Amino acid sequence: MPTNPLNHLNFSAGPGALPESVLLQAQQSIIEVPDVGLSILGISHRSDWFTSVVAELEDNIRKLLGLAGNYHVLFLQGGTTQQFSMIPMTLLRGRTTAADYLHTGYWSGKAITEARREGSVREVWSGEASGYRQLPSEEELVFAPDAAYLHYISNETVEGLQFHRVLGRDDVPRICDMSSDFLSQPCEANRYSLIYAHAQKNIGPAGVTVVLIRDELLKDAPGDLPGFLDYRNHIQAHSNYNTPPVFAIYVVLLISRWLLNDIGGLEQMGEINRRKAELMYRTLDESNGFYRGRAELQARSTMNATFNLRDQKTEQRFLAEAHAAGFSGLDGHRSIGGVRASLYNGLTLAAVEQLAGFMEDFLRRN
Amino acid sequence: MPTNPLNHLNFSAGPGALPESVLLQAQQSIIEVPDVGLSILGISHRSDWFTSVVAELEDNIRKLLGLAGNYHVLFLQGGTTQQFSMIPMTLLRGRTTAADYLHTGYWSGKAITEARREGSVREVWSGEASGYRQLPSEEELVFAPDAAYLHYISNETVEGLQFHRVLGRDDVPRICDMSSDFLSQPCEANRYSLIYAHAQKNIGPAGVTVVLIRDELLKDAPGDLPGFLDYRNHIQAHSNYNTPPVFAIYVVLLISRWLLNDIGGLEQMGEINRRKAELMYRTLDESNGFYRGRAELQARSTMNATFNLRDQKTEQRFLAEAHAAGFSGLDGHRSIGGVRASLYNGLTLAAVEQLAGFMEDFLRRN
Repeated sequence: MPTNPLNHLNFSAGPGALPESVLLQAQQSIIEVPDVGLSILGISHRSDWFTSVVAELEDNIRKLLGLAGNYHVLFLQGGTTQQFSMIPMTLLRGRTTAADYLHTGYWSGKAITEARREGSVREVWSGEASGYRQLPSEEELVFAPDAAYLHYISNETVEGLQFHRVLGRDDVPRICDMSSDFLSQPCEANRYSLIYAHAQKNIGPAGVTVVLIRDELLKDAPGDLPGFLDYRNHIQAHSNYNTPPVFAIYVVLLISRWLLNDIGGLEQMGEINRRKAELMYRTLDESNGFYRGRAELQARSTMNATFNLRDQKTEQRFLAEAHAAGFSGLDGHRSIGGVRASLYNGLTLAAVEQLAGFMEDFLRRN
Repeated sequence: MPTNPLNHLNFSAGPGALPESVLLQAQQSIIEVPDVGLSILGISHRSDWFTSVVAELEDNIRKLLGLAGNYHVLFLQGGTTQQFSMIPMTLLRGRTTAADYLHTGYWSGKAITEARREGSVREVWSGEASGYRQLPSEEELVFAPDAAYLHYISNETVEGLQFHRVLGRDDVPRICDMSSDFLSQPCEANRYSLIYAHAQKNIGPAGVTVVLIRDELLKDAPGDLPGFLDYRNHIQAHSNYNTPPVFAIYVVLLISRWLLNDIGGLEQMGEINRRKAELMYRTLDESNGFYRGRAELQARSTMNATFNLRDQKTEQRFLAEAHAAGFSGLDGHRSIGGVRASLYNGLTLAAVEQLAGFMEDFLRRN
């Protein structure tokens, strides 16, 4: 029985639900971090304890992903939005070659806007014509062999679209925004030159962003970047270049321990997430069109199931009744509306079973 | 009797001690935010609740400072270090005039380095020759009437130096880094064009930075800044341009309520902080040179009392015995060593009395 049943039924798209055991440890740390004795909010970021937090978290992420030794693991502020700028500042500014970007939804559009400030961008593919309901097949994509890099988003949170394969060429740096599916399943991390993900979907609270970066990617980076936008400064300082978000990083450490010790690794986490998504989509598909999945079948996301009801009025009643029944966070993104059930790591299969039960009951009654 | 006595004796220079009543509320919010029912780590930053958190916090800061209507109040990520860059990007890039900077210690040195990447900087005064043990008198300073702006740091945390007056000309934009004394006393906020302060000294945990910015300061800002480095985007989005650090902002709200309701305002907070500092410095001054204050008398900080003992060996024994007695965070900054007692808002007069008692006892025994 969860301490707080409402957290158990939190389907928010982010910041999202976290496992109860992690919440309880995070709660304890506000008054007293075990082995330190102080509130986590008053511990120096230069303390031995915090140094060990960063080191253990880095090590746990390496273990979970089987990451090769030539990657740096960073914990930065500024979210995905800061990465949208830092990446082209580092790899596109002053270059004559273009970067390849896929435009698969709301967030990749933002990434492209920021990249264009720094250099030339080639849109490899756009989902605009389909209203961002599908993703390209392998045959539709032609990647430039001389691109500065390829950038794409593995899971479009707003539209509920997810790639179920690695894109691009192995001879062009592959960069991926995994903000909404990082550490939700194995991801062949060693095939990417840079992976980034803010914490607030699967791995922690808002306020910290994980960046994995292959060492050789930085060899030609400009030398005159603002200090806090230069990856090399953060690498050299082990993510302690300026005061990091201590509490947020600690919660990500707790999640990494939970993934390793309670769940058993990313294969197991991926299997749990696959079962949650299967149940969710089965509930849509067996509703005879009462619930209508937004994304094309092959592009469906295991993380964000987006759907509509037959009309606006029924949809609004569905959301209101679900909310009254204790389910939260089901409203679709403000840009497209509809319903979105986010199924991040912290959300249990039992919670999805409860939602599926509610949806079947709502269907019967309407 | 505090829940955790070790938090009570936390003299850390930052992240620093927070009031116990705030810690208890922060702790509760990890499992359940009152009136919402969910963990704060899983509440959407687009929720009505979080919108009201930002609005109330902004309003509380306006009240505490008596801030005029033509200021924007922002809550950003990236810390002081990001502001070191954002300010000259916005106000110096592409200009022919120089900005005036005071070089009063470790942190203002960092600010100058970042400003020089963006334009011309005139060092109005440097404390380098004195080893950053003093601050300039009014007579020593000549400010340029045509400077792009004046930048200085009100309290140098590392060296323990604090200005006890407002600097500069009223016809040149006055910009101040108040990271380590913001909301510790009244500050004539309306005389500044821009004030910034990260939270982790007096007003909250690491991960959020408050920026007060006068509207007309932005009228000539460049139009092609990266989105997250353009103050106007954050203003337009009410600090919700991209996912903000929800928990850190909530804790700052709790501190603002504590300042208004429990303490009674900044006059009262300033009086408490003045008494804490007086006791601390009296303990140094009445030790017959056993404890030696680092800063020149007029430049002494109410926030960070820095001092040395007669020799390195005694100093190390002092720090070890203080730590064993439950006092924490007393080590000086890694760049200069020595002892530093930080006396931020969250630290009580009772805690300073305990430290003073310990210091007198240590003196008697040595």
